[in-house]
Amino acid sequence: MSAPSSAAQLDSSATVTIDLGVRSYDIAIGTGLIGRAATFAGLPRASQALIVSNATVAPLYAERVRAALAAHYPQVHLLALPDGEAFKTWETLQLIFDALLTHGCDRKTVLFALGGGVVGDMTGFAAASFMRGVPFVQIPTTLLAQVDSSVGGKTGINHPLGKNMVGAFYQPHRVVCDLETLQTLPPRELSAGLAEIIKYGPIADTDFLAWIEAQLSNLLAREPQALAHAVRRSCEIKAWVVAQDEREAGLRAILNFGHTFGHAIEAGMGYGAWLHGEAVGCGMVMAARLSAALGMVEAAFADRLVRLIAAAGLPVRGPLLDAGDNAGRYLELMRLDKKAQAGAITFVLIDGPGHAVMREAPEALVRSVIDACCAA
Amino acid sequence: MSAPSSAAQLDSSATVTIDLGVRSYDIAIGTGLIGRAATFAGLPRASQALIVSNATVAPLYAERVRAALAAHYPQVHLLALPDGEAFKTWETLQLIFDALLTHGCDRKTVLFALGGGVVGDMTGFAAASFMRGVPFVQIPTTLLAQVDSSVGGKTGINHPLGKNMVGAFYQPHRVVCDLETLQTLPPRELSAGLAEIIKYGPIADTDFLAWIEAQLSNLLAREPQALAHAVRRSCEIKAWVVAQDEREAGLRAILNFGHTFGHAIEAGMGYGAWLHGEAVGCGMVMAARLSAALGMVEAAFADRLVRLIAAAGLPVRGPLLDAGDNAGRYLELMRLDKKAQAGAITFVLIDGPGHAVMREAPEALVRSVIDACCAA
Repeated sequence: MSAPSSAAQLDSSATVTIDLGVRSYDIAIGTGLIGRAATFAGLPRASQALIVSNATVAPLYAERVRAALAAHYPQVHLLALPDGEAFKTWETLQLIFDALLTHGCDRKTVLFALGGGVVGDMTGFAAASFMRGVPFVQIPTTLLAQVDSSVGGKTGINHPLGKNMVGAFYQPHRVVCDLETLQTLPPRELSAGLAEIIKYGPIADTDFLAWIEAQLSNLLAREPQALAHAVRRSCEIKAWVVAQDEREAGLRAILNFGHTFGHAIEAGMGYGAWLHGEAVGCGMVMAARLSAALGMVEAAFADRLVRLIAAAGLPVRGPLLDAGDNAGRYLELMRLDKKAQAGAITFVLIDGPGHAVMREAPEALVRSVIDACCAA
Repeated sequence: MSAPSSAAQLDSSATVTIDLGVRSYDIAIGTGLIGRAATFAGLPRASQALIVSNATVAPLYAERVRAALAAHYPQVHLLALPDGEAFKTWETLQLIFDALLTHGCDRKTVLFALGGGVVGDMTGFAAASFMRGVPFVQIPTTLLAQVDSSVGGKTGINHPLGKNMVGAFYQPHRVVCDLETLQTLPPRELSAGLAEIIKYGPIADTDFLAWIEAQLSNLLAREPQALAHAVRRSCEIKAWVVAQDEREAGLRAILNFGHTFGHAIEAGMGYGAWLHGEAVGCGMVMAARLSAALGMVEAAFADRLVRLIAAAGLPVRGPLLDAGDNAGRYLELMRLDKKAQAGAITFVLIDGPGHAVMREAPEALVRSVIDACCAA
């Protein structure tokens, strides 16, 4: 597998075009984008726009976005949601519908999601559902959201019985990745974003994996050129996969490398205890170990990946989810995952460096990998 | 405008194929369909199916559907929602997600909507949103749902500030219109269904309008051959319109003839006080009168339409929504309608028999039409 690669130059601005056939949109990557009116030129016209953000991000960036949007929309409203995965619920989503209807917004109103993955997922689902669909723009302010949730059109909310159980596939009109917003990101969230960047290496691009290893200190230092390339290459790979499989019938599932174990960790710990990227980082350790245990990839490759995940500041040891049958609890939670079908768990596994496949695995082997990865 | 017509024979079974390009599906029309396993052959396979119905319809028909589905799905669950437009809310929708997750349903699970428009709209939106989309089948058991809400892919729920404000465009895999289920329909609901059937005459097909006038007594007597033709021709016209404009960018809006006034009546009276079809019937009277007042159609054509609406057992006199400025209240409610843009109300008006257009109208004229239609 080899996703087409952009020119290798390391500058700090780029545009990635996502072409899904029906509609294509651009991902603008650069520094200082959110404060410029030009960033938002050429979007659908409307009399009103609504910026949806959260209590943490809004005070930092909302006024800059509002000023830039004022050049294009007569009325620009702002809604700040409570911050955190725990609020990715219908009740919070309802606040968006309430705001839209209270302001008399119509089916041309454009929504702008300013924040991390939670804000993006909820605003995207609100845009998909409000009057059966209004335009929206993603302005992801976390590294995780810039490389992952802003590409691919997955939107949704959590249900008490499972994560992202209710949602829609709905594409934004544009994605604006401003690298400047990453400067205020807490270190834990920077690492969480690196988890999804690292992911693209083992599943699709070993050259990129080597580049991340070489540039890790620059990435951790938030050097704009390194961040720009990491975001651009991640978006390119994801876009290449999604363009071939928008509805997740097959290939797209490889993007879930580390996510089956990761979702079990998130669900078992309670959403929000671990960041999504942290759970995915640890989940990739388990998935890599399982791939090696199945003889699909050499143990040395799994070791290399685990070293990189640890160096990125991510957990590589799984949490104990049950004092008794810990592996059983992981399995139980993985069977509830929406990628499971009729109770069978399909794992994304590494079938040689840079190549991923979906397959089931013997339960005893899965148990032994979980036990080894969770050992003290 | 002339929608392609099926052969004019009056038998009591038919299949209308809806071709939306991306995916086509069939509307099966006949007597006794719901109890036959063959009715549900060829649908997506899954280990589980969920029938969503309501407290009124489930005791009458759910077991027959369950028995027919048992030939195709190892597990068939049933969920009966509370009955009525007042329950077309997120809280009720949540019951569907709860049932799906409690039963361990996966993204292949097929939903079957057994009931009227409320069940169909909610089940369709649940299918669109559960795990970002699972297949669903409409089994409309009211005349209104058979001719209207089962074609076109509009799904959704109400919001306290407006009807159908949250939803999705999502197409069913099949629609099964069993004319036998219409035999148990309360007379008021039969008339409500006739409102949407009558609607297709003035906007698209004057031959059909004349046919309805001639067959009205057979339709009111629930004669299967007459019902079959009315359902088939209505579905054909709707399908023809929707196929050209699935997302309601333009032409599709003509299907809302009578609905702008009708939604104001529903909202002003409180959802459920008048049936949707009753509000549309009365709304068509107002829209026809407004068309005549604008000189777009002869007063005699409006009179003819009003006579037919009254003969179908529908209200032709508008309710008083405000003891003071009644017309002002209608206007206020119509500006909240999601078809309004930036506060301007666009009406669907008759521009000659069998032809509809969208246009705005002078407020004074709209007020005088409302006053005349609501006078005691």
